[in-house]
Amino acid sequence: MRIDIATLFPEMCENYLSQSIIGRARSTGSIEINCHNIRDYADNKHNSVDDKPYGGGTGMVIQAEPVYKCITDIIGDNKPKLIYMSPQGKTLTQELVKELAREEWLVILCGHYEGVDCRVIEELDFMEISVGDYVVTGGELPALILTDAVARLQEGVLPDESAYTEDSHFNGLLEHPLYTRPEIWHGKSVPEILLSGHHANIKKWRDEESVNTTYRKRPDLLNK
Amino acid sequence: MRIDIATLFPEMCENYLSQSIIGRARSTGSIEINCHNIRDYADNKHNSVDDKPYGGGTGMVIQAEPVYKCITDIIGDNKPKLIYMSPQGKTLTQELVKELAREEWLVILCGHYEGVDCRVIEELDFMEISVGDYVVTGGELPALILTDAVARLQEGVLPDESAYTEDSHFNGLLEHPLYTRPEIWHGKSVPEILLSGHHANIKKWRDEESVNTTYRKRPDLLNK
Repeated sequence: MRIDIATLFPEMCENYLSQSIIGRARSTGSIEINCHNIRDYADNKHNSVDDKPYGGGTGMVIQAEPVYKCITDIIGDNKPKLIYMSPQGKTLTQELVKELAREEWLVILCGHYEGVDCRVIEELDFMEISVGDYVVTGGELPALILTDAVARLQEGVLPDESAYTEDSHFNGLLEHPLYTRPEIWHGKSVPEILLSGHHANIKKWRDEESVNTTYRKRPDLLNK
Repeated sequence: MRIDIATLFPEMCENYLSQSIIGRARSTGSIEINCHNIRDYADNKHNSVDDKPYGGGTGMVIQAEPVYKCITDIIGDNKPKLIYMSPQGKTLTQELVKELAREEWLVILCGHYEGVDCRVIEELDFMEISVGDYVVTGGELPALILTDAVARLQEGVLPDESAYTEDSHFNGLLEHPLYTRPEIWHGKSVPEILLSGHHANIKKWRDEESVNTTYRKRPDLLNK
């Protein structure tokens, strides 16, 4: 799978994406990720790509043309999935992550400051995706969230399938509680069943705890 | 306001938090942010702080003791709000962001790999917060999302209040469309009203477009 990120802060994205599990996945070739600087497509010597919003107001808006040039330069005659990270978009869920993880190529646009001129979003027919009902300074963290979530489902990125199929939200439930050594910590013991070595019973306990946890913390998920 | 982040990847967080608007806010003293490495609280010479989960399974779980030592070292005798970023947590919304932005001091714990031994989450009474119903490799991106969202509401971080009160989700609606120069791009014109200079009419148009956009893209928000 290939992911391209168009942003005003490529080094911010590159830093995260070169570390930990995603960094390793890139170096072993399980996934290809490229970060592009929209400023490289400015048409002026100051590399300025934003301007004041028509109609007034605080903040700056990223102009249509540099975004258009950047994206069309990345994609050429190809038709990858174009995604604009925006608080106006469809809310990201693990279902949508699984769907996008099956694409061959994603191109992700990050806004920054106030946002991007809406005409280029329409012209290039971006799918808009939101990571949640809150606002952050730019689309970089949301783009990294999407990239990370999609990348870890690619073959060869995690040690095996169970590393993600047992996660919270993978099957619509929250995960069971986790314990590691020592057996007793601050007077709290690990549940005996987890020490039993009886795999079927452990699986049963974990499945039950997964449902209990979901019921206690996110009953709305059980209704879905 | 002060925010402390406890993580296995402090430099990943530090990199994001030293750039753009948040970086400037830290250097002008509008907000204090510190990143701490949980590994500094390991009790072995390999600085190992994770171990296999009891009951078996893939991946590693962060141990209770180094987390406990790290957090208690940060907070001393104080009682800041303790937050654990977890897909099991309460879903972050702009309402919750506004609430947390009024706290004096937040301490945010990031899990990584499978997660953190549940006993320390209980012992220190962390509030669990989730940025959305999907799974990422670690709590670092979620912690940065929360930090960024809360930081930009602090006084002196953005140029003035209107820079965030007009954002999507601030008042439960999506934002109106944004346009910047040129006036005509790829045959698409800026709506005439935005060029009129008539502030009251522009405000009326933007308010209407805000409701229209919300109705079209996120009708569920209008029901709230």
